[in-house]
Amino acid sequence: MTTKATFFHAGCPVCVAAERSVAEALDPKKYDVEIVHLGNQGGRIAEAETAGVKSVPALVIAGHAFHINHGADLAALK
Amino acid sequence: MTTKATFFHAGCPVCVAAERSVAEALDPKKYDVEIVHLGNQGGRIAEAETAGVKSVPALVIAGHAFHINHGADLAALK
Repeated sequence: MTTKATFFHAGCPVCVAAERSVAEALDPKKYDVEIVHLGNQGGRIAEAETAGVKSVPALVIAGHAFHINHGADLAALK
Repeated sequence: MTTKATFFHAGCPVCVAAERSVAEALDPKKYDVEIVHLGNQGGRIAEAETAGVKSVPALVIAGHAFHINHGADLAALK
């Protein structure tokens, strides 16, 4: 059984680096990773906020938010 | 062949959460993950700094630093 992991980003350079090095590095046997571009999928900003995401890039694993470096505040994407 | 990944932490609660959810989530087929407690291994702070680490917890993958949330500034560990 895999655990849900969601990587929220906004297409910025910091986000892309984190996506390639961290999000894609997760063990596919244990994690079902979904990549969500909040710039294109603004309807999912509320979901990110509920998980505790304050800025992107961020990785939400099993409901816990982990901010990876800093690309943009979530507020800047609204 | 595996890529070197080093997770630097200082034993703080933020660090432990990141270790369990992110560092241990990396694909073992692709990454050789080393966990370094800078509080106990102060001799490796310079190595973390060279990789661009500013605070812990941080994950250095293939020489690139990714800060995961914020537990403590590296300066506080010296």
